[in-house]
Formats: sequence, C-alpha cells, structure tokens
Amino acid sequence: MTSDDHFNTVAIAGVGLIGGSLGLSLRQAGVCSHVLGVGRNPGRLEHARQLGIIDSISTDLAEASERSNLIILCTPVAQIIADLPVALKHAGADAVITDAGSVKAQIVAASNGDPRFIGCHPMAGSHQTGADAARADLFRGAAWVVTPTEATSERAFRAGEALGRAVGSIVAALSPSDHDQAVALISHLPHVMASSLVAVCDAEKPRTPKLPLLSAGSFRDATRVADSSADLWRDVCMTNRDAIIGAIDRYVDQLILVKSLIETSDSEALREFFAAAAKAKRAWLHTSS
Amino acid sequence: MTSDDHFNTVAIAGVGLIGGSLGLSLRQAGVCSHVLGVGRNPGRLEHARQLGIIDSISTDLAEASERSNLIILCTPVAQIIADLPVALKHAGADAVITDAGSVKAQIVAASNGDPRFIGCHPMAGSHQTGADAARADLFRGAAWVVTPTEATSERAFRAGEALGRAVGSIVAALSPSDHDQAVALISHLPHVMASSLVAVCDAEKPRTPKLPLLSAGSFRDATRVADSSADLWRDVCMTNRDAIIGAIDRYVDQLILVKSLIETSDSEALREFFAAAAKAKRAWLHTSS
Repeated sequence: MTSDDHFNTVAIAGVGLIGGSLGLSLRQAGVCSHVLGVGRNPGRLEHARQLGIIDSISTDLAEASERSNLIILCTPVAQIIADLPVALKHAGADAVITDAGSVKAQIVAASNGDPRFIGCHPMAGSHQTGADAARADLFRGAAWVVTPTEATSERAFRAGEALGRAVGSIVAALSPSDHDQAVALISHLPHVMASSLVAVCDAEKPRTPKLPLLSAGSFRDATRVADSSADLWRDVCMTNRDAIIGAIDRYVDQLILVKSLIETSDSEALREFFAAAAKAKRAWLHTSS
Repeated sequence: MTSDDHFNTVAIAGVGLIGGSLGLSLRQAGVCSHVLGVGRNPGRLEHARQLGIIDSISTDLAEASERSNLIILCTPVAQIIADLPVALKHAGADAVITDAGSVKAQIVAASNGDPRFIGCHPMAGSHQTGADAARADLFRGAAWVVTPTEATSERAFRAGEALGRAVGSIVAALSPSDHDQAVALISHLPHVMASSLVAVCDAEKPRTPKLPLLSAGSFRDATRVADSSADLWRDVCMTNRDAIIGAIDRYVDQLILVKSLIETSDSEALREFFAAAAKAKRAWLHTSS
C-alpha cells in the first residue's frame, strides 16, 4: 500500500493549529495523497475541509484508523492517551501511529510497546489556536523530537523522522523520559513561572494600584505566555508531573541561592551570577533553533 | 534665573542611554537652553557633544553644579549615591536636583532631607546602552515616577513632575519605599527570574546537549532580559536589597503552592490557577502603559 516515504491516507485526529498545520504541510511536501480529518465535532471538521486543510472527515477514530496508513493524534495529551489504544487496535499491521503531544512518557506508555508507534513532538506553536490559524510553514526551522524506545520498529522510527524533515523541522531523538525532563525545564517551567509572576503581582495590585502603570518590558516578556489555555496547561502539569516538580525544585533552589547572595551582600558573587547568565544566554541564542 | 518651566542650564551627570535621551528630549521640549554633560571621561563626553546630545562638557561635578539650575544624576545607582551630596553642596539655593536611578529609598536617604531634591525614575530603557543609543522619544508613553517626601519642596516636586510630562511620560507619585517595593516585583524580580532560568538550564546542558535545540518561544521570552549588564543588576540587588528579598520570598511561596497542586494532582485548582493568571494578564495588558 505505501512506499517508505509516501502514505496514501493520513488520518489526523484533532484538526486544530497543530493538526491542521500538519495536514497542510504534509500534503504540500508530498508525504500523502489524502488527509482524513478525525474529530467529534462534524461542523468544525467541515470548516477545516472548506479551508482546504483536510480532504474528508470522520467522527469515528476506529473506522478512520482502519483505512489509514499513517495516524497522527494531535489532540490534547489526555485525549491522546485515551485515543491511542483505539487507533492501535484498529490500524493495519503496516500502519504507523504517532502523535504530536507535548509530553511523551505517559503517551508512550499508553502505546503498550506496540512497534508501530513512534512518539513525536513538533516544538512549534502560536498564541493562536484552531484550524483557522493553521499554516503549512508552522514547523519550519523548529525542533521535531522523536522518542523511540526498544519496542519501536525501525519502520516507525524512520517514519517519525521523515515526517519532521518533511515539514522542515530539525529532527532530534530523545528517550521519552529525557524529552519530558528537557521540556519540563525549557517550556513547562517557563509557563509556571509566567503565571506565578502574574499571580504575585496581581495579588499586590490592591495595595499598589499603580503597579500595572509601572510594568515595562521585563514584566511583559516574563509574563508573555501567561495568557495561555488553562485546560492545556493543567493537562501538561498532570501528565508531566514528576519532571515539572523536579524543574520547580531546581528553580526554587536557584532563586534561594540568589536570595542568599543578596542577603549576605555578596556583591562579587552576584555580579558573577548575572555575568554568567548573560554569557550563557548569548551562547544559547547562537545554538537554539 | 529660571521661570517655573524653563531652566537655563541643565547639568546631566552620566551621558549614556538615559542621560543622553533626557538631554535630547528636554531640549526638544524647550525645557532648557543649554545642556551641560558631566562625566569622568572627556573623550566620551566630547563624542556625546558631537552627536548633538549636549552643548558643553565638564569633568567636575562640583563646578558644574554651581552653574546649573537643574542637575540630573543619570549614572548607576551607587554613583548617584556618591555624587548626590556633592551636587547638593555646590548647587544654588534655587536649583533643583534630581536623578534617574532605578531604586529610590537609598538615593532619597542620601539627599539627607534637602528640599531641593526630588527623586525621579523614568521607567524606560533599551537593551542598547551608551550615548549612541540615545533617542529624544525614549520616554514617550512610559511611566515617570516621582518620589516626594515630607522634606521635598513644592518647587522641586513640581519640577520633577514637569520633567516627566516634558519628555512625554505618564507621571506617577509614590513614596520612595512604595516605589522600591513595586519595582522589586515588577522589574527586579523578572530580571532575577530570567537569569536564574538560564542558570538552571545551562547547568543541565552537559547532561542534555540538545536542550538549546528544544528551546522555543516560552524560553526565549522568559530569558530575554538575562543578557543585561551584570554591574547594573548587581548594583540594583545591593541597593534594593530588602524589597527584592521580599519579592523573591513571595514568588518562591507561589511556586511552592503550584508545586503542591501538582503533587496532590489537584486538577481543578491547577486549572483555576492558570485561568486566573490568563485573565489577570489580559487585564494588565489593558491597564499598563
């Protein structure tokens, strides 16, 4: 049915920003001939079809899985975990099943060692959501993490990497656990930080009503991601629990260290701390995607 | 010598981004006829004169203070504290002395209750530094805090407010202590947060070399101000010590609260936390300058 680099029918479950952008991008790259949009809301799917993101629609994941060569689950993480066994049960023996969830260990665990599954995490996004915001170039230049395990078939692993390259991303392989620890530090912690700063400053507002007037660039930057989906971030915290707790612990330890330098007026160590961070920040700018 | 809204000669000590922009802006607004640049490095002052930022130069603050009607100290905070007694000693009885330092209680204390002094904090800045980055419109639309005390003369208070209005800022009066607590939360804490996140992630890099590749928008936003002057931020931490320690404590308490919600899998409270922060962030966007 399929050559190694082409899939006749790709089922995308969850045709929002990520799923919709994958649909546009994979077809543009010639990875598939037909995109089947899967979801619970026929009206939304029909809207995505009219936008040219998908070719046909299905509200039945089991049925859609039976007739697809590649199945990509792009719903929120909790839904991916619920849907994955259904997709695996109904997909053919030579199908590849993957996902676009932002945590991996719990999702990979839900695949139950099925060799046809490869976890993926396209590390792109936008403050916009929904199929209307979908763009074929959303993933260009971003990281695309694949998280193979010992159970993953060579074919599924290669398909996961090929998808990332097809959409223009930079592909990196990590174990599910290493992935989750990395994104806890680099993405989940910054979201907790931003929402926490808003919470602390908002609690101070009754006492200092001029606080918003005084907020300038550093506050805006530090809180930019605080206006995100509460459901999504609750979901991330619940599904990447241990890694996020570990990241918060390390971050709190660092803040307490800086506090102790201020308390003891250790001027030279404080200067060193800010100088080392500035130097590292510049180095990261040159090595990040 | 001076009408209420015009100063013949304005001395600006420290002709960098802030001092240089004030020079350009105050002359453009007709607040003064002559800008006297004061500093220790004649070459840098001459460069600022050639850029049209200042009209004449002096390397002697005492002498410059004697022949100026308005003296604005725009050096780093520690230097302001050292220079303020000199300026007050040599300025005339009807002169106004002010500053542009980002902390106020220690600076106001160094004025020793002199009625001619009014502390100011123009809350604008840039990642750029130095006179070459000076712009007449740097302060437009930003907050300009004046910090009067019981000792401040009506004349000095009105001059501090008039300066802020002249450069196009939104003027707000706060006590020195309220100012310092507010900026500790809204500006100093975000800088400590950004540098601390870089420190934690950089320490993880040897174990996870792909970490910079995985860093996306939330990390970039959260660490944008980490590449700042180490001397400046050491200085801020040392001169706004108690308020920054208090801000770190409140922030750490908030992080530990979020951590406990994750640890106890309190899904609904987590959703509430992210939703409240998103709502507050949107409200702040509409009320900040």
